[in-house]
Amino acid sequence: MPTPRVGIIGAGQLGRMLALAAYPLGIECRFLDTRADAPGGQLAPIRVAALDDSKALSALARDVDVVTFDIENVSVAALESLESIAPVRPGPTIVGLAQDRLAEKRLFASLNIPTAPYVAIDSAADLDRARTTLGLPIVLKARRLGYDGRGQRIVSSPTELADAWQALGERPAIAEGLVTFEREVSLIAVRGSDRQLRFYPLTENRHRDGMLELSLAPYVNTAAQSQAEQWMRALLEQHDCRGVLTIEFFLTASGLVANEIAPRVHNSGHWTIEGTECSQFENHLRGILDLPLGSTAVRGVAAMRNLIGSVPPRERLLEIDGLHLHDYGKEPRPQRKVGHCTLLGRDRAALDDRLNALETLLKTAQK
Amino acid sequence: MPTPRVGIIGAGQLGRMLALAAYPLGIECRFLDTRADAPGGQLAPIRVAALDDSKALSALARDVDVVTFDIENVSVAALESLESIAPVRPGPTIVGLAQDRLAEKRLFASLNIPTAPYVAIDSAADLDRARTTLGLPIVLKARRLGYDGRGQRIVSSPTELADAWQALGERPAIAEGLVTFEREVSLIAVRGSDRQLRFYPLTENRHRDGMLELSLAPYVNTAAQSQAEQWMRALLEQHDCRGVLTIEFFLTASGLVANEIAPRVHNSGHWTIEGTECSQFENHLRGILDLPLGSTAVRGVAAMRNLIGSVPPRERLLEIDGLHLHDYGKEPRPQRKVGHCTLLGRDRAALDDRLNALETLLKTAQK
Repeated sequence: MPTPRVGIIGAGQLGRMLALAAYPLGIECRFLDTRADAPGGQLAPIRVAALDDSKALSALARDVDVVTFDIENVSVAALESLESIAPVRPGPTIVGLAQDRLAEKRLFASLNIPTAPYVAIDSAADLDRARTTLGLPIVLKARRLGYDGRGQRIVSSPTELADAWQALGERPAIAEGLVTFEREVSLIAVRGSDRQLRFYPLTENRHRDGMLELSLAPYVNTAAQSQAEQWMRALLEQHDCRGVLTIEFFLTASGLVANEIAPRVHNSGHWTIEGTECSQFENHLRGILDLPLGSTAVRGVAAMRNLIGSVPPRERLLEIDGLHLHDYGKEPRPQRKVGHCTLLGRDRAALDDRLNALETLLKTAQK
Repeated sequence: MPTPRVGIIGAGQLGRMLALAAYPLGIECRFLDTRADAPGGQLAPIRVAALDDSKALSALARDVDVVTFDIENVSVAALESLESIAPVRPGPTIVGLAQDRLAEKRLFASLNIPTAPYVAIDSAADLDRARTTLGLPIVLKARRLGYDGRGQRIVSSPTELADAWQALGERPAIAEGLVTFEREVSLIAVRGSDRQLRFYPLTENRHRDGMLELSLAPYVNTAAQSQAEQWMRALLEQHDCRGVLTIEFFLTASGLVANEIAPRVHNSGHWTIEGTECSQFENHLRGILDLPLGSTAVRGVAAMRNLIGSVPPRERLLEIDGLHLHDYGKEPRPQRKVGHCTLLGRDRAALDDRLNALETLLKTAQK
């Protein structure tokens, strides 16, 4: 049986967890990253180069059966140029849409998926238009290169709005009306060959300082699940891409409102490693390699807690029964995701006991 | 938080699965093996040397916090010589006992653990004594270096007995009375610091041609579980060793009869990767590094099926819902363990459906 080989652009924690899922399947990985000491590098060779270095990218593509990526901010033109060498999955088109908040909004609109009202900002005049159309407060977001809450700000006055745009370097942006939501949820889907499609259950996501802190799964809401799946299907009718795709939603009084898409494995799906029959990482590999998809059936209830800044003492974390540690092998740094823990329980009450123990530990460890 | 580093003598599939369990814990591994292309080598650096090369072993020990091994047939003297450099876990003593079937028998006897009746064979006269004491048939086993049924033979006549000993090169051996058993089971325990001790549930093991083919877990039998745990405790009172330790038993009409011990992670515990909260591999690492032990609680019922000779086409295996493939990255070869599959189910009926699908596939794939 030949060994399939996957090229991964970006060797961050997502790439690392893809490589960990690849070994048991007998799949080899090869990375391209700007840093030799990126988290994936202990698991598979890294070509060190800029992410848009066309020579290095071509060499990677020639060395593998399929190219994928663990970050979104990779040049669409570079990805397109690789397609003559090896399949790029999910494709460059969906990456381009996910990179540009305006294109993403238009994509949602074309599929009749509700989103926050918005105004494209290219000039100071647009700011005035946004204010009158949307009212205040407004969320101002750079069109490109935002993640984990970076490149966005909530503003409550005209002056703040002007300042926020200036702080963005007067780059193309979008202004969004603030959505009042009950909770944030995400839907992760995986697409394989022959139009195979599987969905994980909705995950509830709780953020702090714009960064995902805690995911709880499954978020059981039949109506929302079915609505989200229907929209994901529509999106995948329009864009035939393989592998894992995520849509983040706000759940509001009037239903789901799409926030953004991520054409890759997603932080809100880390709990699937222990919490489902086949993780998002393994299913992404299966999807992009035209292998049969794995079961997304849930095993118990799960909580995924990001470790931000530093990993608390290992011997204290592992005292918590049933805790699964995922250390990304990164240097500690404020506001950096350096690992996560997954906790499982038979039911929410059992899970909450373990989660409370973890939160108590994190509070004392951070002091 | 400093990165603990574990030295593993032997980089076979057990070492490979230890390394896979080590990454999420933020633990580094270093191997020593006779082959650069051993299965663990893709996951962590291998020092290529003979397993009793004292210079290479010392260099490994100096490079790590604790030394362990993925095979039993490693020189006890060499392990002992490392103890002044780094802890060796589980210790050389228990390895010495597991390597020598006669010493193992005496160990069981000293703990009042029933075993098959036996006679030590060092001469032709001993063969006669064995025949009169034990009757026929007899199982003749080399005292050292047997595994997967190699170095042992069942004989039914005096001539066969003499031939079998000759075939062993008239090496020291033991003759065992044949035990009539209902099934074979194994108990895996893990010992940590502060006398922490956890047990996995008994696993039922089915062999073919002397090689483990299928494990089913948990094997639920309260009396046998409690008896096996009691004996394991007694053994660990006598030998204070850290990490995973396995005892294989025959279950007979009159109860458990110990067959052998393995001072390491064990093929019959592979199902714990998906089938328990914390796998034998992770718990071995926790145990030898003085970290808190993980929960051995079971998640559903599990079957582990070894893939022997070759791995069937990946795309056909992965069609079976809920199948977990573990490819060891080895070249195919008859009678070689090249991977395993774990199947889970809510109950035995659900599991059997999946297992039947796998057995059918294996039958057609082998044609």
